[in-house]
Amino acid sequence: MKHIAKKRIFEVEPYRPGKPIAEVKRELKLSKVIKLASNENPYGPASSVLKAMIQEAGLVNRYPDGGCFYLRQALAKKLSVGGENLIFGNGSDEIIVMAIRAFVSQGDEVIIAKPSFLIYDIAARLEGAVIKAVPLKNFYYDLDGMKREITPKTKIVFIGNPDNPAGTFVNEKNLVDFLKKIRKDILVFIDEAYFEFVNDKSYPDAIRLIKKYKNVIVTRTFSKMYGLAGLRLGYGIADVDVISILNRLREPFNVNSIAQAAAVACLNDKTYYRRIGREVVVERTKLYRELKKMGLGYVETATNFILVDVKNDSTMVANQLLKKGVIVRDMAFWGLRNYLRVSIGTPSENAAFVRTLKTVLS
Amino acid sequence: MKHIAKKRIFEVEPYRPGKPIAEVKRELKLSKVIKLASNENPYGPASSVLKAMIQEAGLVNRYPDGGCFYLRQALAKKLSVGGENLIFGNGSDEIIVMAIRAFVSQGDEVIIAKPSFLIYDIAARLEGAVIKAVPLKNFYYDLDGMKREITPKTKIVFIGNPDNPAGTFVNEKNLVDFLKKIRKDILVFIDEAYFEFVNDKSYPDAIRLIKKYKNVIVTRTFSKMYGLAGLRLGYGIADVDVISILNRLREPFNVNSIAQAAAVACLNDKTYYRRIGREVVVERTKLYRELKKMGLGYVETATNFILVDVKNDSTMVANQLLKKGVIVRDMAFWGLRNYLRVSIGTPSENAAFVRTLKTVLS
Repeated sequence: MKHIAKKRIFEVEPYRPGKPIAEVKRELKLSKVIKLASNENPYGPASSVLKAMIQEAGLVNRYPDGGCFYLRQALAKKLSVGGENLIFGNGSDEIIVMAIRAFVSQGDEVIIAKPSFLIYDIAARLEGAVIKAVPLKNFYYDLDGMKREITPKTKIVFIGNPDNPAGTFVNEKNLVDFLKKIRKDILVFIDEAYFEFVNDKSYPDAIRLIKKYKNVIVTRTFSKMYGLAGLRLGYGIADVDVISILNRLREPFNVNSIAQAAAVACLNDKTYYRRIGREVVVERTKLYRELKKMGLGYVETATNFILVDVKNDSTMVANQLLKKGVIVRDMAFWGLRNYLRVSIGTPSENAAFVRTLKTVLS
Repeated sequence: MKHIAKKRIFEVEPYRPGKPIAEVKRELKLSKVIKLASNENPYGPASSVLKAMIQEAGLVNRYPDGGCFYLRQALAKKLSVGGENLIFGNGSDEIIVMAIRAFVSQGDEVIIAKPSFLIYDIAARLEGAVIKAVPLKNFYYDLDGMKREITPKTKIVFIGNPDNPAGTFVNEKNLVDFLKKIRKDILVFIDEAYFEFVNDKSYPDAIRLIKKYKNVIVTRTFSKMYGLAGLRLGYGIADVDVISILNRLREPFNVNSIAQAAAVACLNDKTYYRRIGREVVVERTKLYRELKKMGLGYVETATNFILVDVKNDSTMVANQLLKKGVIVRDMAFWGLRNYLRVSIGTPSENAAFVRTLKTVLS
């Protein structure tokens, strides 16, 4: 059947996710494994969220509400936007795919940063896009460089904000400047998966921008700070025109019912997440200090992950760590040959990472 | 942004799902509502399945296993196929979409029955397909008619087996006959969402056909008999060549972790589902009898739903039933103006439906 499938789909290297803990345990016959590879919240869900999930579990024989009524209501209120400005996805990566499918035809151009979240590149090329990848400048977005890549064929610009794997962000002034200068019929896709971790006054209030810039969509997720990665739930905020276009491509029951119930409970439990946010800051500072002591480099991050310059072949270091039960992300595939991306875990996980890294590098 | 989106996506009427129970309660201010509109299992999950879900709920901070290791292993064993012959989707409708995205380009042709599951038509037209819809003959597939619609541009033929909304199925002899006669580079997509309800020796063992017919994909779901509609989990079985093509379009974490755990538990709990299967047969027979007594018509079904000829305007009848708290599916949109599609519920739900229908029709 290969000869009748679209050729372009064979030209795209599939995404390789971080290995699940169970897989590493199985394959390496390890009893204890620490995963700092997927920028997850290292804690389980809050007890109120667990309760909501268990309650919903008894009702899974019914299809989910395709309109996400209660979640939409809760989120619209929290964000002060209309319900019609929201779209929900099976993870925010589904919203990335919907946007590309809606706007990109074979030969159209999509602008991304390099390195950046791989799904932008993969999903766009699966739809036949030509990718213009603009290198980061000292680990920051080069928006001027991205602007220069715009042609009449440009359909989408992806801005990971903060970006993954760099962990840095585009500030409000630079973002607004960019939006002012570009054509109003280019979709600017602002991926705020790590929004909840950012604590900086210069960080854009992107949701407020959608009123003025009808070509902007902002996405966020319950997979990171909110700790629902396993349940798959992301959302997009945009002008109703963009939302209604994407909705036409959305499968009617794309968001499962337990995710909907859990997300509503998350929004109601602020103290739990504030505590996690504070812990990330404390642990990040500790990690910086440890890395400095070891003579290693790192990129200052606004998120729950750090790009670490191990000053050695990163693939070798990542493999050695893996054998000792510590899963991190090797950045060689992203073109950063001496770098690892390491998620902030629990205090004991972070300490174990530092200990194991010292052993591997010595 | 509408002017830069693909034109074809505005030409497709979106799918309208059955109303959720909570929505009907809210909108009509009813305290008791019965839903017989989405062919769900009317019972909650088995206690063993609930237990597996609750256990997994504490771990949702981790991304799901994108490879569905344990589920793949369990299902491959049960079906006696290789793990590489399976693909999992966020509901089997996601697999429908992946197949269309992989094989159908603008102007290609897709053959479906009329009426049939609406997603075939919607998803194919969103990718720019030309639909050849072949009317059922006395509520059965007209495979000869479908064969006659094949042209060099034909990419996929969808066979709902049993079909929704008719509830009838294509038997083994006719299916094999059709497969023998058509080109080997047309994907034959056999949707067996209601497989578990069929109890008839002439029903095809379609999974056995994938060894000989590399152009066949069979899909099944945990949404119907297994009662996991809210969790979204379907799967496809095909030659490894077809599976690997679809996998290239699959988002890396498309199946949530609770669905994976629940499905494994479902496969281990045969007695619960056998009991439900038996009850559907008993209740179906009771419903036939009641409909006959009322002088109404129906199509004999192999599934957990019945197409009922109410001998009146179906939209009017469906609306009257809704006002009295009974949600069924009006078939007018499918071109069956006097028909309702009614799911088999619990004995008391079915009795309430009969009672309410009598009131409405009198």
